[in-house]
Amino acid sequence: MAPPEPSIRRLRREHFPLSGSISEPRETRMAVKPKVLVVGEISTDSKDYEQFSEEFNVIHYPRTITRQEFISKLDGEFADIVAIFTVWGAFWGNFGGFRGDDLLAKIPDTLKVITITSVGTEQFDVKALNQKGVWVCNVPGLSAVPVAEIALHLTLSVYRYTSVFEHALRESGDAFASRQAVAVLDKETGLPGSKDRKYTEFALGEAVGPCYVHSPVGFRAGVAGFGSIGKQIGQRLNDIGMEVHYSKRTPVSDNELNALNYTPKYHSSVQELMKNCDLLVLALPLSEETRHIVNADTIKLLPKGAKVVNVGRGALVDQKALVESLKTGHLSAAGLDVYEHEPAVEPELTSRYDVTLLPHLGGATIEVMEKAFLQCMDNIRAANDGKQPYTPV
Amino acid sequence: MAPPEPSIRRLRREHFPLSGSISEPRETRMAVKPKVLVVGEISTDSKDYEQFSEEFNVIHYPRTITRQEFISKLDGEFADIVAIFTVWGAFWGNFGGFRGDDLLAKIPDTLKVITITSVGTEQFDVKALNQKGVWVCNVPGLSAVPVAEIALHLTLSVYRYTSVFEHALRESGDAFASRQAVAVLDKETGLPGSKDRKYTEFALGEAVGPCYVHSPVGFRAGVAGFGSIGKQIGQRLNDIGMEVHYSKRTPVSDNELNALNYTPKYHSSVQELMKNCDLLVLALPLSEETRHIVNADTIKLLPKGAKVVNVGRGALVDQKALVESLKTGHLSAAGLDVYEHEPAVEPELTSRYDVTLLPHLGGATIEVMEKAFLQCMDNIRAANDGKQPYTPV
Repeated sequence: MAPPEPSIRRLRREHFPLSGSISEPRETRMAVKPKVLVVGEISTDSKDYEQFSEEFNVIHYPRTITRQEFISKLDGEFADIVAIFTVWGAFWGNFGGFRGDDLLAKIPDTLKVITITSVGTEQFDVKALNQKGVWVCNVPGLSAVPVAEIALHLTLSVYRYTSVFEHALRESGDAFASRQAVAVLDKETGLPGSKDRKYTEFALGEAVGPCYVHSPVGFRAGVAGFGSIGKQIGQRLNDIGMEVHYSKRTPVSDNELNALNYTPKYHSSVQELMKNCDLLVLALPLSEETRHIVNADTIKLLPKGAKVVNVGRGALVDQKALVESLKTGHLSAAGLDVYEHEPAVEPELTSRYDVTLLPHLGGATIEVMEKAFLQCMDNIRAANDGKQPYTPV
Repeated sequence: MAPPEPSIRRLRREHFPLSGSISEPRETRMAVKPKVLVVGEISTDSKDYEQFSEEFNVIHYPRTITRQEFISKLDGEFADIVAIFTVWGAFWGNFGGFRGDDLLAKIPDTLKVITITSVGTEQFDVKALNQKGVWVCNVPGLSAVPVAEIALHLTLSVYRYTSVFEHALRESGDAFASRQAVAVLDKETGLPGSKDRKYTEFALGEAVGPCYVHSPVGFRAGVAGFGSIGKQIGQRLNDIGMEVHYSKRTPVSDNELNALNYTPKYHSSVQELMKNCDLLVLALPLSEETRHIVNADTIKLLPKGAKVVNVGRGALVDQKALVESLKTGHLSAAGLDVYEHEPAVEPELTSRYDVTLLPHLGGATIEVMEKAFLQCMDNIRAANDGKQPYTPV
């Protein structure tokens, strides 16, 4: 399939500053070009890529390359590569990750850098690669704004119950009937009423089963995790009139606080945060400490009728406990971009409409994609020149 | 059905200041209480209503009362009413509106005021009522913030294509597969790919058929109509990094401009606005002048790939022309809260997922509902005391 044509392509790059400054493309070298292996799909129709491919001998393999084929080529076609340009989806799944002696022992001495188009580096044994003198570079910070946009979207969705209203409207083709159906939403199933079970009075759209619809204005948003993404989320929730709280191991510094346009309230743990918010927004990384940090016990710390939004990692939440609290009504709604068993999303979620569900769209914009490619290219240029790349892990 | 129980009921009233100041409830009068007719459903379990019903003899009729029954009671049970408290949905539809000599000729002399719980007064012959000495009062300004929240939600939806991603995820139960299906969305039908027509490469979620997914940051939002709702919308779109433009017959005054936290760019007509924006947000009232202001001709003024959000009135948009531009790709997406043939929403819209559809939720929050009831009660109190009510039309 040809790459999709852009609809509006007026990118404003100043809004997505890269972490490192970007080196200018240099004169094309006429000598033997260093070899770069791209694994996965990269768009090749840009001026940036054209320039890159004049500087480097770029070879392409699909992300479906098998572990066996990959390893076999390490002392063949890949024996003189200086860089591996890893695109989204590569080395995951059946490949088994870029780790293990069978693979690492055969890494060529020429390899200087591996770049990754995302923030997470779970599929790489970074420590072992560094010990072999190979830089591993991700693209931090690029997705903070787009992820915060998704968090804002999910916040508006859980307050205004847009998913169930949209579903009911598409089912009935009638604005009045859909609001009447939503007024008798069944919390056990998370489904609006049907033709047989319909509210017959006028419904303004202010009631979703046993819950009232509120504007988020004045409610307390608790942002768990307050890195670059959490701060952008806090900004947007403050902008729509919410009172912003956050949790982090240590409070942000006065300098960081002064750089914000709002004054969030600090809590020393996610549990303390949960006692003090009406909406919990998860923007934490996943670790053994944070796995299932939202579970049957901690959900009780939230006030009755609270809402949960997750744009961090799916396994931060015990999904069974989440669904159970929606059924009992302890939670009034949830908005999820990430899932415990991702990419799978189970019917206990997909069948409910008091949850809004997105397929991990956080950083999925063309701006992020293009910036990520540029940053990978510049990291490869720097490492190939024997310099420290801009964004090593 | 019993009124729904509130989930979280910590209303922050200061966020929704009423247009008029609210008089304190007075001592209960022991004399014969003036009669107030409520048409439609009003929640009677509040302290405010309790107080009101101590001051007035409140009689209730459902919004399904027929025109014939209503008129017949005007010289019977309704012959001594001082006020009609009109709740959402009353006098619409088969009733034929609160107009016409058959009805108006029988209005009792005791009637001082008719209150309406919404902004629009299309169902009343306001002029004729005023000539008979009857105040007609709406509730202006209450819904500006909640409508702006819906406009913000729809803006994020049309930029990030959340409706089609959510639909595909619920269909497939798989985050990867849903992004692959959306990557081959068919602009003719507005449907994502099926099992037979699926993109097989890794999809980040950056492509929706022929369109790329962009963050709204840096794009130009054109807000058509810049009253209290339009200004709140502009604020929110400015907050998420858009460049705000607006159209209005005359530019807002310097005082009004200084009261805003952002500096929108003025255009003297909707057509000029359309030439200068990537996203058109309609927040106009409906009039003969604005009906179908977005039509097959004017849509061409928007740049290719533009998006349209409508939170004003459905008939501002020629729906056939809108759907046609989605099919040709001149528009990349649309977000609608109102419809040309509302309450009906036709399959040409409900079957498409490059549109986000909400059933006229703009002001549908419990806060608006409660504030509207309070304001109606205070208008009735004032008029009954022979004073000018707070918010006459």
